[in-house]
Amino acid sequence: MNLIQAIIDKEYNPTVVGLDPRPDLLPADILERAQKKYGSGLRALAEATYEFNCGILDAVADVVPAVKPQSAFYELLGHHGVAVLERTVKYAKKLGLYVIMDAKRGDIGSTAEAYSAAYLGKTDVFGKKCRAFTPDALTVNAYLGSDGVRPFLADCKNGRMIFALVKTSNPSSGELQDRLVDGEPVWRRMAELTNEWSKGLRKSHGYHALGIVAGATYPKELSEIRKLLPHSIFLVPGYGAQGGTAADIVGAFDRDGLGAIVNSSRGIVFAYKKTGEDYKTAARNAAIYMKEDLLSALAAR
Amino acid sequence: MNLIQAIIDKEYNPTVVGLDPRPDLLPADILERAQKKYGSGLRALAEATYEFNCGILDAVADVVPAVKPQSAFYELLGHHGVAVLERTVKYAKKLGLYVIMDAKRGDIGSTAEAYSAAYLGKTDVFGKKCRAFTPDALTVNAYLGSDGVRPFLADCKNGRMIFALVKTSNPSSGELQDRLVDGEPVWRRMAELTNEWSKGLRKSHGYHALGIVAGATYPKELSEIRKLLPHSIFLVPGYGAQGGTAADIVGAFDRDGLGAIVNSSRGIVFAYKKTGEDYKTAARNAAIYMKEDLLSALAAR
Repeated sequence: MNLIQAIIDKEYNPTVVGLDPRPDLLPADILERAQKKYGSGLRALAEATYEFNCGILDAVADVVPAVKPQSAFYELLGHHGVAVLERTVKYAKKLGLYVIMDAKRGDIGSTAEAYSAAYLGKTDVFGKKCRAFTPDALTVNAYLGSDGVRPFLADCKNGRMIFALVKTSNPSSGELQDRLVDGEPVWRRMAELTNEWSKGLRKSHGYHALGIVAGATYPKELSEIRKLLPHSIFLVPGYGAQGGTAADIVGAFDRDGLGAIVNSSRGIVFAYKKTGEDYKTAARNAAIYMKEDLLSALAAR
Repeated sequence: MNLIQAIIDKEYNPTVVGLDPRPDLLPADILERAQKKYGSGLRALAEATYEFNCGILDAVADVVPAVKPQSAFYELLGHHGVAVLERTVKYAKKLGLYVIMDAKRGDIGSTAEAYSAAYLGKTDVFGKKCRAFTPDALTVNAYLGSDGVRPFLADCKNGRMIFALVKTSNPSSGELQDRLVDGEPVWRRMAELTNEWSKGLRKSHGYHALGIVAGATYPKELSEIRKLLPHSIFLVPGYGAQGGTAADIVGAFDRDGLGAIVNSSRGIVFAYKKTGEDYKTAARNAAIYMKEDLLSALAAR
């Protein structure tokens, strides 16, 4: 599936729901059910996570085009969690959602090939080609340079893509990323590198398969990176819980109002903690609110 | 367990065996056995990997102080691979080895907390504290700055530690890492950042828990980073298959010949492909050869 097409198909909605199922925030009834059925170990917590995720996915599947599971919250539960991550990706895809695995992988070439085979490509298993995980996209940390990125690009077929970190949303991102390299900040050098690596990639709807990550919490940098990279899709975290507003994000979009997707995790999946509604209803309402918030800001610019 | 103590205990040996079980290089008899017992899917390949790993660990446990499983080669096999990764770590620890998980994780603060809980800390599972994975150390990508590093440091107790990427061993590492930041290369700025973050950490044998990764393939940089970071343990990949020699690595050690550990993966675990010996014998001999090679180079400097 193509991400931009998915955004357009969902009545134009650039919202991504981040599936960060923090164990301590899962609804009590789900936890109780899992504990009764699976005991009190990591497996039970993983199964609770899966039930929670399915509820969220059912609630938002007709509203948003894409979801972004954060691998850390599954690895936290060991191989049981990773099994649930695989099942979550499959369930989301069955519902027609574009799935971005947020795992920020990155390594030397031969290891990047293995990561890419795991998430975007295929592995030879006794003569049969298998995909271990089945997301449509993966986030990548490109600190190691092109060796660590090209293996992923080679597997970006049929709408699959990667998002390389350029300017991250966290408060300390500037410690390295804002330092000046030959008069330009590191994040700008990283943006330029992604531009070099994207040369020769096929475009679809005007965008190639090498997207970038730039945080809603740094609106000025977002706009500058957009000018540098007219053909990249931006994955923009930091809206909501991290403090980014819709107005902060408009610079990430191009003149057609396209080219960016905005993620919210806690603000959607755990909205029920604030509203007191059923968690599915709360998530659905939060996703609808976010869509309207983003579209109003885009219309107003 | 303390890493430096482990090196000293193994008759002073700064060698790390990298557990990179590439499926296409596993011995045919192990693959056949696994296929007969578990069918022809990812589980069978994962079980073959586990048998292979146990053989390597048995063969090298009394020679080397530490092993480094590379997460990519387990994720490649989905949750079956991750289950085998957990079991490999446990088996290695049972044999008294220090285990460095090479996963190069790194994310914003709240996500880094989850990664840290998964690999170095504990997760609250229905009121009981559990560790999903049980390595002694984890490699970390610090492109995101201190937010992404401090959660790990908070979990570095009882000899546990992290290794932050500074100058990686791959050919393209210079594309970002060698660029000049305020007149200094990015790798140097990263080294200085780790120095700042290590302030206030307790030392054991003169070293703190924030180690760094610097490649054998860049000997000049290795020596410079050693001068900057007298109290950091260096994890040095790139020996052997990647082209680094023992002479290239001496600059990573301090005046006492301590402070660095050198990894070899393919050169040890798949040595049988070159020597024609049984894979365990070949791995053991390659590990002994590497120890002697490193110690000769250290004695000669």
